[in-house]
This record gives sequence, C-alpha cells and structure tokens, in this order.
Amino acid sequence: MSPTCNCSHDTIPNGLPRELHEQFKDPNHPANLICELCRLFYDNNWVTGTGGGISIRDVEGPNPNIVYIAPSGVQKERIQPWEMFVVELPDEKILRTPNDIPKELTKSYKYKQSACTPLFISCYTLRDAGACIHTHSQNAVMITLLYEDQSVFKINHIEQIKALPRLEYNSKSGKVEKIGSLENFETLIIPIIDNVPHEEDLVESLEKAIKDYPGTSAVLVRRHGIYVWGETIWKAKVYNEAIDYLLELAIKMKIAGINPIKD
Amino acid sequence: MSPTCNCSHDTIPNGLPRELHEQFKDPNHPANLICELCRLFYDNNWVTGTGGGISIRDVEGPNPNIVYIAPSGVQKERIQPWEMFVVELPDEKILRTPNDIPKELTKSYKYKQSACTPLFISCYTLRDAGACIHTHSQNAVMITLLYEDQSVFKINHIEQIKALPRLEYNSKSGKVEKIGSLENFETLIIPIIDNVPHEEDLVESLEKAIKDYPGTSAVLVRRHGIYVWGETIWKAKVYNEAIDYLLELAIKMKIAGINPIKD
Amino acid sequence: MSPTCNCSHDTIPNGLPRELHEQFKDPNHPANLICELCRLFYDNNWVTGTGGGISIRDVEGPNPNIVYIAPSGVQKERIQPWEMFVVELPDEKILRTPNDIPKELTKSYKYKQSACTPLFISCYTLRDAGACIHTHSQNAVMITLLYEDQSVFKINHIEQIKALPRLEYNSKSGKVEKIGSLENFETLIIPIIDNVPHEEDLVESLEKAIKDYPGTSAVLVRRHGIYVWGETIWKAKVYNEAIDYLLELAIKMKIAGINPIKD
Amino acid sequence: MSPTCNCSHDTIPNGLPRELHEQFKDPNHPANLICELCRLFYDNNWVTGTGGGISIRDVEGPNPNIVYIAPSGVQKERIQPWEMFVVELPDEKILRTPNDIPKELTKSYKYKQSACTPLFISCYTLRDAGACIHTHSQNAVMITLLYEDQSVFKINHIEQIKALPRLEYNSKSGKVEKIGSLENFETLIIPIIDNVPHEEDLVESLEKAIKDYPGTSAVLVRRHGIYVWGETIWKAKVYNEAIDYLLELAIKMKIAGINPIKD
Repeated sequence: MSPTCNCSHDTIPNGLPRELHEQFKDPNHPANLICELCRLFYDNNWVTGTGGGISIRDVEGPNPNIVYIAPSGVQKERIQPWEMFVVELPDEKILRTPNDIPKELTKSYKYKQSACTPLFISCYTLRDAGACIHTHSQNAVMITLLYEDQSVFKINHIEQIKALPRLEYNSKSGKVEKIGSLENFETLIIPIIDNVPHEEDLVESLEKAIKDYPGTSAVLVRRHGIYVWGETIWKAKVYNEAIDYLLELAIKMKIAGINPIKD
Repeated sequence: MSPTCNCSHDTIPNGLPRELHEQFKDPNHPANLICELCRLFYDNNWVTGTGGGISIRDVEGPNPNIVYIAPSGVQKERIQPWEMFVVELPDEKILRTPNDIPKELTKSYKYKQSACTPLFISCYTLRDAGACIHTHSQNAVMITLLYEDQSVFKINHIEQIKALPRLEYNSKSGKVEKIGSLENFETLIIPIIDNVPHEEDLVESLEKAIKDYPGTSAVLVRRHGIYVWGETIWKAKVYNEAIDYLLELAIKMKIAGINPIKD
Repeated sequence: MSPTCNCSHDTIPNGLPRELHEQFKDPNHPANLICELCRLFYDNNWVTGTGGGISIRDVEGPNPNIVYIAPSGVQKERIQPWEMFVVELPDEKILRTPNDIPKELTKSYKYKQSACTPLFISCYTLRDAGACIHTHSQNAVMITLLYEDQSVFKINHIEQIKALPRLEYNSKSGKVEKIGSLENFETLIIPIIDNVPHEEDLVESLEKAIKDYPGTSAVLVRRHGIYVWGETIWKAKVYNEAIDYLLELAIKMKIAGINPIKD
Repeated sequence: MSPTCNCSHDTIPNGLPRELHEQFKDPNHPANLICELCRLFYDNNWVTGTGGGISIRDVEGPNPNIVYIAPSGVQKERIQPWEMFVVELPDEKILRTPNDIPKELTKSYKYKQSACTPLFISCYTLRDAGACIHTHSQNAVMITLLYEDQSVFKINHIEQIKALPRLEYNSKSGKVEKIGSLENFETLIIPIIDNVPHEEDLVESLEKAIKDYPGTSAVLVRRHGIYVWGETIWKAKVYNEAIDYLLELAIKMKIAGINPIKD
C-alpha cells in the first residue's frame, strides 16, 4: 500500500519500548502513514528542504482525540515513526515527544514541535478533521502570486473539481459536514491569507478563513503554501492531490491567457 | 514486468476465496494489470485525486466477454486486484463486485461502479476493444482549452504519430479494423466532445464521436480528460502514451507559436 | 548498478537455452544493459509509446563485431534480454532473433528488426562506435522545431558542454578519434537532418551528416528525435544525457529570449 | 534512510580490504552517503552526464579532518563507496584513491581527482563546512542567465527562505558561525561568479565571494551551476534543496513578470 515502492522502508529498531515496537508493526498506524506520505510528498517537491508537514488524528484508533504530528525542521522524507509528537485533544496535552525516545535512535537530536501545530489543531477543532496536510507546493505559492491582490482562488468547469467535498454548516450539530461532492461545473473557492513572520501567528487568519468559508477544505497562504484537511488522512490526501492538480492547471491557463473561471 | 519497480507490491491476503487467490497469482491477470498500470498512471499525474480509471476485457482468457473495471472514487494507485467490478458482455451482467469480498479486506468500504462504466462498454461494443483507459491528463485538458472553439485536435509530421493504428471500416465484418499504422507525415485527428455534469451522460456524444471518426483510437473530453482504447491493454497503453506525448508536444508548439499542423 | 532501483528486475526464466541462461546472469551483458537503460529512458519520457531504441556492440566481449539491438515496435521499458536481435558485423549476418526463442517466453509474438538497424550500423561503420542510442526526446523534437529553417543546432559557454568528446579525423588511422573533451566556452554543433516517411531511408542523410560533421557525436532528426553514439554504451549514455540537458536548457533560453550562442 | 527506495543498492564486494569492508557496512559512512545522495541528485537532473559532485568531511568520525570526494568524470549515480578520493586537511594529503582499490572492482579505470576539489577545500577552510555539494542544476544555470548582468541573486518574502541559516562573522572565533535561521521576509542573497575554462581556476573568485558575502551558504557560477555547503552533509542537502526550490520559483516569477524582490 506504499506510494511508489512497497519495499519495507522502515525496519523497526530494537531499542524502542515494546509498546511502540508493537504499534509500528501496523503499516496503517498514523505514525507510519505520516512517514509514508512524507516520502510521497517529498517526491512531489511539496516538502523538500524540511518544508511542510502532516498531522493525523487517530480517528480509527481507541482514542480519536490522539493526534500525531511530524516534528519541526527535519527532513520530512526521512522521519521515522518514533519521531512524532503525540498530543491529546482538547487540552493539547503532550503524551509523547521524540525526545522521550532512546537517544541512540535519535542521535540526541533535540526535537521541537512543529510551528504548524496550532494550525493543525485549528482544523481539528473547527472542522472535526481527521488529518491535516501542509505543503510548500510551488503551485500553491505561484497561484497566490498570480492572484496577488485577491483573497480567494476560484476555478470552475473542470472535471477534477468533483474530487472535492461539498461542505455545509449543520445548525443541529453545530458542525460543518460533508453532504456529497462538488459538481464539475461548480466553482471551487479557496481563501488566500497573507503570510506572517512566525507560522504560529497564522492561527487567527487561518481560523477566520475557515469560518468565513465553510465550504472550503483548504486555505492558501500567500508566498508560503497550503493547508488541506479531510475526514481521514486518505481524504485529506485526495483533496490535496485534487487541489494541487487544479492549481497547476490554473497556472497553465493563466499563463496561456485562459481564465480559470468560465463566464 | 512492473513499470518502475519489480518489488512484489501486492501480496495476496489469506481471506480471499481460493479461486481468486489462484487467479491473482498470475501477474498478467487483468485485475493485476489494472493495479499495476494504475500505479504507473498515478506516477504520470494522470489519475491523481481518484481521477481516471482502467477497464480490461479478458481477451486472452477463457471468456473474452468478461470485463474488469476499477471501482469509482478510490485512490487508483492503491487499488488491489480483489477490488474490481467484473461484468459480462453483452448484457452487462455483474458477475462480482468488491462488495462481495470479505469485509476485512476492504474495511467495509461500500464500492460504487465507476461512472465511466457505460463509456468503457461503448468502446467494447462499438470498437471491439480489448481495454479502455481514461485519464485526467493535464495535457488532454490543456489541449481542449487551447482548442476551445474546435471539435477536433489535429497534428501531423511528427514521428511519434507512427505509434498510432490505421483504422478502417470493413464493410464485410461490419467492424472498424486495424490495417496497419499511421505514417509520420499523416494527420492524427482526435475528436473533442464537451463535458457534462454526470460522466454517464457522456455516452451519447462519445458514441457519436466514435462513429463520426472511425479512424480514431481516442476521444478527448473538454475540461475533463481523455478516453483511449486498443485491441489489448498493452496496445491501449501504447496508444495512450503516444497520444499524451503528442498532446504535450502540441501544447509546447502552440505556446511557442508553432502550428501543430504543417501546411 | 541499476539506474533508479537495484531490485532484481529480470528473473531469468527456465525455458531459455542453457547458454543464454548463463550469459544473462551477468548484469553487464549487453542484452541486460539494453533492458536496464530502456527502463531508465522510459522514465525520462525518451522512449514511451514504443519509440526509440538502443543498440550495443559487444566491445568488451570475445567478439567485438557482435551487435545487440532492441526489437521494433515493442514497449521499450518491458523488453527482456532474450528479445534482442543479434547481428555480426561487417556483413550484418543475423546470429539470433527473438523469434528463435521458445514461444512460451515471447507469447508467440512475431518480432521485427528495428527500423533503426541500418542507422545504428552506420554509426558502427563510420565511427567505430560501441553503442548507439535513439530517443524521441521532446527536447530533441522541440529544438528542431525552434530551429526549423536551420541545419545545425549550436550552443556555447555552458559548463555541461565539457561532458562531450573532442573528435578529430586521424589521417593515419583513417578514423574519427576522440582526443579529449570539449571546453565549456567552445561551440557544440549538432547537425539536424529532415525526417522521412520510412526510418531506414534516413541512412543517406544521417551518413552525410556524420561525414560532414566529424566533430559530432549525435544527429538530430527534425520532428522525430535524436541519434547519439559513443565508444561504449556508458559513454553513449553520458553524451546523450549531456546533450539532452543542453537541448532542454537551449529551449528555455530561446523561450526566455536568450541566445544559446554567446556572441 | 535512502532517498526514494530502501532496497539494498550496494552490496559490498568481497575483493575489498577487510577494513573498508567493515566501514562500508555503515549506511551513514560518508562514502555511502555520497553514493546515496548522488543517486538522489541524479533523479533531480542535478548531476546527469557526469556533472556535479559531492564531498563530505567526516565531522562525526574519529578524525574530522578527513574528507571524502567523489571522483571526476564518472556517472555520479553509479559510483560505489570504494571509488572515493580520501584527503586529509589541512595539508590535503591524499590518504586513498580509487586507483588503490583492486582492479577487478574498478575495471582498471584510471580515476582522476575531481576538478572541484580545491573549491570543496575552500568551503572547508573558509567556512569550516562539513560537506559541500556542487550541481549543474538547470535552475541555477537559468537564474544566472536571467540575471546575466548582475553579481547577485536576491529573493525575499517567501516562506522557504526560513530553511536557510543566518550566518555571522564572530570576531572572537574569527569564524563565520550559524546563529539561527533567516526569517521569511528577509532577503536571501547569493553571489554569482563568472565561469572560467578550468574549474580549478574558479577558486579565487569563489573564495572572494565567500569572503565578500559572509551571510551566504552558496555561490552560483554563471552558465555552470552552484556550490552549496553546510555544517553537515544533511544541512548541506537541506540548504541545497531550499535554494533550488527558490531558484525554480524565482524563474517562474521572472517569466510571469513578478519581481522576486517585493519592494
């Protein structure tokens, strides 16, 4: 089930606590999926140079409030399952950090929590997401430059739009819920927020964008990248792929003088 | 014989019925080939975000009327051989669906038939095809945008055109038959049809295009992608590769101000 | 020593004659190298859609007059070592064809000799080459379109030019011989010949170009691709890579309005 | 920990001296890391056609003055750990060359030291670097062509800039030291030096650029490529990736008419 190659990439070392050793035998454990997808995203040029990150909430596990987050500033394609920060919602209590792991496995590297952490938490809190992906995709950055004076990116009448969910605020549950998929002729709208010097300071504008655009599954950050979330990590992956496809196409259209919005 | 890596990607799980277990040991079984080619197409950015699909008619098997079709809305690069819909022509009788497979293998996912199914069936019925490939290739989408007001894409005097078959209506057999290959100086013509909200509603215009252009092995769908078919899955793969190569080249030519048609 | 992945791609089947079985155990056997490099070239989009081909003369083997040639019209990334045509120079005597191989290994496919064969032979005869590579690289095709009215491609003052050999006619040996490498400030000149309907009819103009340009290691074929040769398969591979790099760069330069020739 | 595939790419041959045999069992040995990263860089089109190179100083080993350097003129993606030149600083004493290795492992190839060697040494000497990477990246070459009349490349207000180190001259230690990371709104400045016929003659201008720009981790060489260094090979890899990302983005911006410098 691995993206480009099914070779056993990660052999679990002996030094790990027995409990983790058991957990990581499951290729679908959130910590393993983060590693697998980071390698895939690296090949897509989305997380090179330590950029970007992934977080998964363990929605299928015994405690769906537990969140796994890739650490800050490391080479994303080389992280190992024992290098995750593990946080419990809603209090954001830190259950485990890679600094708790035997030093011979981490070479005494001092891990820091990802600066994206509060942004990931916003997606979990405001949207009940199961996973959140952050990339430095050049398509995301370029579209925000081509729409420099605009606060949203829009595209319509492209088949791939169908891969994205139709979301609606449900006044009974008080939640934004998926009620199907977009149609290909509909307009996909993704808000663009401006970058700030410190990633954690993006929280306010990200949360505002999420609230102002209840139909969106993503927020573009100008001159920076994109945040995409979904009900599960696989949905988040699909939404991210479909959006990046549409961003790439829109850039080509703009450069060829074709409006991504058809009348 | 796998596209980029020969590692054993798919190990057959124990829960499968013995009959399927035996079938899937053959790497050339249509269900395995669909999986293998979906991974290759994913790497080409042709079926990301659950887009596209493949169908193979078992032309070399005991019953050439049996058709294997990848399911709808799943990640194409991760499908497994037991996740196919199996249909028998000409009545389109459903012989097996992935919903018949032990739930522990499919995680209780509720599979839907691909919306492309009637389009694939059209290729089998009208052209006696052995396989049909549908991609969301950006080259296909872009060419239909660059030829927005035209109903065909044309290119000539490029060597790669030779990879495409010369097809002709045979009044004796009543079928369109391959009688060789195109010459490099000839004009390859691929009809473009307009997209519709629901993929199954493309059948009428796709069938009209197939009938109006007996020489074509493919139909472009504007703002959507392409359908390509062939006598076997390998021929369909080669035609699809050659056409995508020509579409990519034609886009580069158009942008550089060079006409894909040489006088 | 494989290009992207060292997994054992080709397991040798039992049905082969014992002699071939032994030969193909050597990963550096010309027939294995052709397979390995075809997979690499496929990933580079140089030989998709059955396009292109490779031929190796067994310069390190017991008989350096033996030439291995990939067959015509097959998927280049999937050929197996027993599918080569084997020819002996100078009489072009066919020593073995894949049609001689047990049918269960070739599925009774009727192989044809590559239409490139006489062109490969020209490189062996006129230049004493050890290998010849033919690709449908889009960079090669595009440069011939951007230089539509010219008979040569020229570039200078780029470091990568150093990877190409300095060739000179030696009146004593009567041969064109390598006497070092080009300098980065020198002008690389590659002749462009026009395409013809049948590949074998390119021989005359290819041979004329080889004779007219004793310093070249390659000939571009307009709207078709490129032929590149070298003293060994590894040299031919390096020259082909370096030339394709320079063609790609020259296209970017032209489109950005920069002349590939610096005064 | 391998870049795209964890298959055991290099099996250590028996003919090696026992000491080397033991060393090369460690995948993190500098000689193995050079091989691994050369394969990765080859896939990125940074070192095709024998271009580019890597050197690692053994900063974590028993003698941090020992430097491993890939040899000249070989296919970078195919080098083996026993093909390195090993040099000791500060006298540049050659401890081992691949010509000392049993001939059956090197096929009697006569290795030459990389022409980049004095440039790598400059980075070690002037900046106390732990590794130095040299690529022929087309992004590097193109940016020097787009900034033909300028002696520096500048970009600011892009998130990826944060991956680069903040360097400052420490008058106490007399060294340029890392004191943190750049902010995303700051201006990354990379000096551009002009190419010369012989790579070793670049030393003077490279050293001048390193001294004139104490904040830089890289030097662009016009019409040639880039040199990037870091405290360790992993830091050098990350800096190189981040810079190449920014060069690629800047090229797209320039072509779209967007200034890489925001007011």
